[in-house]
Amino acid sequence: MSEPQAGAMELGRLSLDDLRDAWRVLDGEERLEGFRMLGVLDAEEFFTQLATNDQRALLDTFSATERRHWVRMLAPDDAADLLQELDEQRRAEYLALFDEPVRREVAALLAYAEDDAGGLMSPRFARVRPDQTVDEAILYLRRQAFDRLELIYYGYVLDREQRLLGVVSFRDLFRARGSASVRDVMKTDVITVPEEMDQETVGRVFAEHDLVALPVLDGAGRMKGIVTVDDIVDVVQEEATEDIQKIGGTAALDAPYLEVGLLGMVKKRLGWLTILFFAQMLTVVVMKHFQVRIETVSLLSLFIPLIISSGGNSGSQASTLVIRAMSLGEVQLSDWKRVFFHELAAGLCLGLVLGLIGFARVIGLWPGDAAEYALFSWQLGVTILFSVIGVVLWGTLIGSMLPLVLRRLGLDPASASAPLVATLCDVTGILIYFLTATFWLAHVFEQAATP
Amino acid sequence: MSEPQAGAMELGRLSLDDLRDAWRVLDGEERLEGFRMLGVLDAEEFFTQLATNDQRALLDTFSATERRHWVRMLAPDDAADLLQELDEQRRAEYLALFDEPVRREVAALLAYAEDDAGGLMSPRFARVRPDQTVDEAILYLRRQAFDRLELIYYGYVLDREQRLLGVVSFRDLFRARGSASVRDVMKTDVITVPEEMDQETVGRVFAEHDLVALPVLDGAGRMKGIVTVDDIVDVVQEEATEDIQKIGGTAALDAPYLEVGLLGMVKKRLGWLTILFFAQMLTVVVMKHFQVRIETVSLLSLFIPLIISSGGNSGSQASTLVIRAMSLGEVQLSDWKRVFFHELAAGLCLGLVLGLIGFARVIGLWPGDAAEYALFSWQLGVTILFSVIGVVLWGTLIGSMLPLVLRRLGLDPASASAPLVATLCDVTGILIYFLTATFWLAHVFEQAATP
Repeated sequence: MSEPQAGAMELGRLSLDDLRDAWRVLDGEERLEGFRMLGVLDAEEFFTQLATNDQRALLDTFSATERRHWVRMLAPDDAADLLQELDEQRRAEYLALFDEPVRREVAALLAYAEDDAGGLMSPRFARVRPDQTVDEAILYLRRQAFDRLELIYYGYVLDREQRLLGVVSFRDLFRARGSASVRDVMKTDVITVPEEMDQETVGRVFAEHDLVALPVLDGAGRMKGIVTVDDIVDVVQEEATEDIQKIGGTAALDAPYLEVGLLGMVKKRLGWLTILFFAQMLTVVVMKHFQVRIETVSLLSLFIPLIISSGGNSGSQASTLVIRAMSLGEVQLSDWKRVFFHELAAGLCLGLVLGLIGFARVIGLWPGDAAEYALFSWQLGVTILFSVIGVVLWGTLIGSMLPLVLRRLGLDPASASAPLVATLCDVTGILIYFLTATFWLAHVFEQAATP
Repeated sequence: MSEPQAGAMELGRLSLDDLRDAWRVLDGEERLEGFRMLGVLDAEEFFTQLATNDQRALLDTFSATERRHWVRMLAPDDAADLLQELDEQRRAEYLALFDEPVRREVAALLAYAEDDAGGLMSPRFARVRPDQTVDEAILYLRRQAFDRLELIYYGYVLDREQRLLGVVSFRDLFRARGSASVRDVMKTDVITVPEEMDQETVGRVFAEHDLVALPVLDGAGRMKGIVTVDDIVDVVQEEATEDIQKIGGTAALDAPYLEVGLLGMVKKRLGWLTILFFAQMLTVVVMKHFQVRIETVSLLSLFIPLIISSGGNSGSQASTLVIRAMSLGEVQLSDWKRVFFHELAAGLCLGLVLGLIGFARVIGLWPGDAAEYALFSWQLGVTILFSVIGVVLWGTLIGSMLPLVLRRLGLDPASASAPLVATLCDVTGILIYFLTATFWLAHVFEQAATP
């Protein structure tokens, strides 16, 4: 990223880019200092583009007069984002800084959940009327350009009850005869979203249709605002970050990695780690059940990590693939049968290949040792072969079905994290392994049991 | 998503939304049939919004005449995306379908790597000259609206050598006096990207600055095209999908989950699984080394899955957090020391809590058993405590440093997948566990060694 006329740093003045580059490593006081060194227009641009967290931190360091000035710079949807995270009292203090009409806009937006289309939208869109002529509409839009509208490139055609009739773009208006009516020029085939639609789904609508803006309607078809694509880029990033962090077995951080303090970081991670640790303790119980088997053929214990991890790895693969496909809308709940048979086939193939590798390895390595236990190395090999097939198949099925089950229960599919799936596979993997061993090495255990 | 005037399905005609909803579950022939049932304008809208893969599949089923018609519907950047994946010969066939000027545009775009800013951009942006008046510029942009320009809301002010001098938006033009010159109105402080910038970085620039379009410049500052934010939503989705799939231990699928056949699916997954399986075989070697310890105190084997998985889980957490932070540009290579100490502290805290839980559990469960081996349950407990601390700390450090090491080597940090980190932690976890056991239970092993 470079600027064609990137100015040299003037005395006592900082360029926009200098501050942007340095921002990440500055502390609170240095940030305020840097911000004050910007020119007036640069400061305005810089402030309105800051992340909400940073805006609030900066506002906190301002004097009352400065705060009023800067808060008023924000578009109503950005102001609502800022106020969303404050407590009642501070929210009221901030609201008091706005003029009455803006205050009403911001308060209306605060009523929406932050993650809904309603919480994303701006109420400032350009309205035109169906009975205007094209020339009137252009003039009208041109006049609206002076207000701080979010987007002036589309005019939304509303009836008296604020219901959306259609959309005209500048391009449409420019191409039409000046005397034609807006009704004749407008597109009526408009993609819209309801105000309570989840932001992840809104992001998908944008991605599918390559849109610049989406009108948001209430239950009665009245237009409440527009969501613009530049806000959606942030949403898509955010949602992916949340998914990735959950897949890794952490609660969503909700802040940049390096800005989360030790206590916060431990809190976000310890929850899942503890749950997983308790779940893992089941492995001890299961292992205890087979302790006599291990005492009889200690050789068996050597393969435990190999076997259970094969399940965990194939399970992690399956679960992340299905979680992502669900996030992208490629897989729905109703697809569960297709996913199941898809994974059944894949799991069998993968298990067979890995099992054969394991078989070959055992045959090659343990001719002597195996003999000590009155078993042939091919018997040990076959035990490994069938255990790996079983464990990989099982891991694949668990991993692919768990996200669907979670969605069915109304939970987030991304909670089927790689560590959770691996843990589930560990417990069942031990069972599968020892049951297979009991079957194939039956004679060895019988022999040991008879005194 | 709903349409205000969603028309009832006419006889022999399909609505746009009907086809969109059904598309996912239709096979090739049904898709063609459905497409042919669309009205002319709907078909045009539908085709241009299709994913590149689907466009190509549809084109393949068309007659030569139809193909020419539909290929020409595509904007040059979309056409380039389509042709990118064809072999030499078919690419030439498709190129021949365009008129000469468009063919030249498409060919120029094909020279860029698909993942670069150059491969994303459209060469069709609106140009204005610095010495035009505002009224002239509006008229000029209005005229350009008839061509299929990507975006007419910004005019890019170029000098004779096509170097970018500034940008004027419609809003700027509308607010200015009609007789002012473009030079006086334009913003010169423009954020631009070089043509070879990676698309992931381009996405980040959009997210940081809330932009609608970014001009792409070559090395000499000449403007080559614009990247628009609607393309970026796809890029951001795609890059996140790739990261997530890699984190899950799969090669990037590059296609919707349900559309990847069995063979393709196995190919994408088997590679990593096999590598991990071979790496896991190291656990057998390490275990073999400690087989005598297990034969002496078979109780020790019960805790192996618990111990090694604690390392894997904390490692997966750390690696996914760091991978995502790197993708978002929050963590750079130069931050490695901060990350290291951050994770060192977090790993110690997490390990201590989990270790104490393990300690309590052992004390509670194994008073009798432990006595059989001439050791006290607190000795076994302490072994678990210190093993868990060591393994969790080690997993956290491996998980957080591996993505940075991979980036340093010029590889993709996302390759530090959860399964890879877990596998590395398994091998080292066994070592840490048995070395800790050897230290704390020294007297038991000594006693067993003396006949």
